[in-house]
Amino acid sequence: MMISKNEVKYIQSLCHKKQRQQDGLFIAEGPKIVEELLHSNYTIRKLFAVKEWLAANPLQSIDTTEIGTAELERISSLQTPNQVLALVQAKAATEPELKGRLGLVLDGIQDPGNLGTIIRIADWFGIREIICSADTAELYNPKVVQSTMGSFIRVNVWYGDVKVLLDANKNLPVYGTLLQGKSIYTIDKPKEGLLIIGNEGRGIREDIISYIQHPITIPRIGGAESLNAAVATGIVLSHFV
Amino acid sequence: MMISKNEVKYIQSLCHKKQRQQDGLFIAEGPKIVEELLHSNYTIRKLFAVKEWLAANPLQSIDTTEIGTAELERISSLQTPNQVLALVQAKAATEPELKGRLGLVLDGIQDPGNLGTIIRIADWFGIREIICSADTAELYNPKVVQSTMGSFIRVNVWYGDVKVLLDANKNLPVYGTLLQGKSIYTIDKPKEGLLIIGNEGRGIREDIISYIQHPITIPRIGGAESLNAAVATGIVLSHFV
Repeated sequence: MMISKNEVKYIQSLCHKKQRQQDGLFIAEGPKIVEELLHSNYTIRKLFAVKEWLAANPLQSIDTTEIGTAELERISSLQTPNQVLALVQAKAATEPELKGRLGLVLDGIQDPGNLGTIIRIADWFGIREIICSADTAELYNPKVVQSTMGSFIRVNVWYGDVKVLLDANKNLPVYGTLLQGKSIYTIDKPKEGLLIIGNEGRGIREDIISYIQHPITIPRIGGAESLNAAVATGIVLSHFV
Repeated sequence: MMISKNEVKYIQSLCHKKQRQQDGLFIAEGPKIVEELLHSNYTIRKLFAVKEWLAANPLQSIDTTEIGTAELERISSLQTPNQVLALVQAKAATEPELKGRLGLVLDGIQDPGNLGTIIRIADWFGIREIICSADTAELYNPKVVQSTMGSFIRVNVWYGDVKVLLDANKNLPVYGTLLQGKSIYTIDKPKEGLLIIGNEGRGIREDIISYIQHPITIPRIGGAESLNAAVATGIVLSHFV
């Protein structure tokens, strides 16, 4: 079985957000992520895989096309294409459940690699809920999916009006990393609450800052002006949990 | 003054390691990094800048060409070209000075973005010495330079035989992040020593692991299999300093 020209074109079109959202589909690549998807409650619509992967992963119920490495290179978004590419049905995020839990609020994270890395960090630290402002990078961007290393399967990533959500959760403590704040080395570990992470360049927006009851900071010793947003998230969470 | 076709070609050729190493030059872009370079002991050989930047930064002693935004786009490696591009003379790293200090050892970090982010983290936490195995990404790769956000100016990044260096510093405590090890939440903060960070995929090489006297680990709560190498570095350092 060969991949058709139209299929190649269609898969390439899914690199564009408009096409993804119109069809409710996204791309996931590589044995690790695809195998995790097969054991998840995501629906895989179609698989394109090389012979070796298919031999190791016998599948009955999924529409599968065997392709060669040259064909995989044509449809892959990866620098090093990796055996298998899946077209996966997007899922609507559920309303965040925040009671008794720690959640993250992302205020305009732009870089897909940063968003994916933050989702992976959240998963590592057992955080289930991420709330994203509407202008945050899109979950199903291929670069986001790949840089989560599969963690997007286990974390609920919800997009919407952050202020409405914060207004609806006034009983929860709200933390945010700012230049001035209590040192992460001296804060009490919260059992529940929200941690706000700002955009890579401008930080947290003024009208969101006003919700922060507990400004916190990572004390600086050297000369760098700032830390990468994902790195800062990892550092703060490692002191929270 | 215009930029010549040959200059455009030459600048583009500096995206290749071979050309950079042959000529001892590298590219740095954007007002923040270029302005930090102007105040550093790096030598800027040539500047290409738009009118607005030149008006705000009058320079006497540097060979400068005013260019338009269309020309900047042709020579820039950035997704969003940013006012100014500098050709900078590479510097040889000095032999690491480790006594009484904490240093990082990078065992084969491959991704330029990860290396740049690790240099920025080191700078934030006041770490001056980074020792890289010969197969670690190159410091003057444009993606490394840009993702350091200027921190490469303040950190000594030395490349060489990691084992020879570890053999020569047997008096220093050696830490390394492994799957099994003492939790970062319970370790004593070291005043001096070396922290080894492994490659993104395979971790620390077997023959380097044998130097680790203090295996440490970031306890996992959720489902992710691993953390990004730069994020893990940031988390460990935040518990070290």
